[in-house]
Amino acid sequence: MYYEAFVQMKKMLGQLDKWLDAAAAQAKTKSFDPNLFVGFRLAPDQFAFVRQVQVACDTAKLAASRLTGKDAPTHADTEQTLEELKARVAAVIGYLDALTAKDFEGAAARVVSMPRWEGKVMTGADYFQEHAQPNFFFHVSHAYAILRHNGVPLGKRDYLGAISLRAP
Amino acid sequence: MYYEAFVQMKKMLGQLDKWLDAAAAQAKTKSFDPNLFVGFRLAPDQFAFVRQVQVACDTAKLAASRLTGKDAPTHADTEQTLEELKARVAAVIGYLDALTAKDFEGAAARVVSMPRWEGKVMTGADYFQEHAQPNFFFHVSHAYAILRHNGVPLGKRDYLGAISLRAP
Repeated sequence: MYYEAFVQMKKMLGQLDKWLDAAAAQAKTKSFDPNLFVGFRLAPDQFAFVRQVQVACDTAKLAASRLTGKDAPTHADTEQTLEELKARVAAVIGYLDALTAKDFEGAAARVVSMPRWEGKVMTGADYFQEHAQPNFFFHVSHAYAILRHNGVPLGKRDYLGAISLRAP
Repeated sequence: MYYEAFVQMKKMLGQLDKWLDAAAAQAKTKSFDPNLFVGFRLAPDQFAFVRQVQVACDTAKLAASRLTGKDAPTHADTEQTLEELKARVAAVIGYLDALTAKDFEGAAARVVSMPRWEGKVMTGADYFQEHAQPNFFFHVSHAYAILRHNGVPLGKRDYLGAISLRAP
């Protein structure tokens, strides 16, 4: 189910790419610089939009890398425009796209460590459920919320994207 | 892994309960009515805080019910205070607490339908990945974002809660 969860993350990043287009379109409609969005934030001590997008991308990318052992692309966190953010999102989608269900075999039993954990570790299963996935959705949702707060016309369908409805 | 995912949702609802306490404490510190929070929102056409909490609760509750076949408690959506929202969160945590891993056996193959889908259905697997889980995190994150936007001192640790770190 890790593979399926990352397929969903990839889908959410595809939706995020569409929100970036919607933000650019809204700026054009209202005649302001679309790249103003990168600095918007919901609280002075919360990440700005640019960082929400960067961290959403990194969370998906690094979680996939830690659970598969496949090296992820690196990014320098230098984006200043919506176009640059779109390129970053596309790079992570491309990375996730190359991973297969087989790559995630044994993910639950992997050992994950981070410098800030001071020598402690998490199992892949715990790391995914308790850390990676909640963080991914947190930053994606905050990116969405910052755009909505600043007038970009988005709705739940833009958030979820197309869902797999089928005949009964 | 459905069971583990709902254990995580239950944990997130427990964190949400703590954010409600933090909101009440912030109102006391700043000498305003804590129940003002229930009406706050990030955009005029987004759900207010009260509705974000209600929908987060309902998404977890109804998804668990649809994937297990176990009846969920009903709620009348009449909450007007933080205390009433805490009671609703507690009721859903109690419902989830009674579910076992065995209850989720066969969840992926269940058939889920909703009136708005006009006769179409989703498999339990698709419904969970593409609809229930993204929606749950969306509303939990928006509840958090509304509080942060309105000055409640919360950080990532309040969002994630304690994580299962262990000796290497």
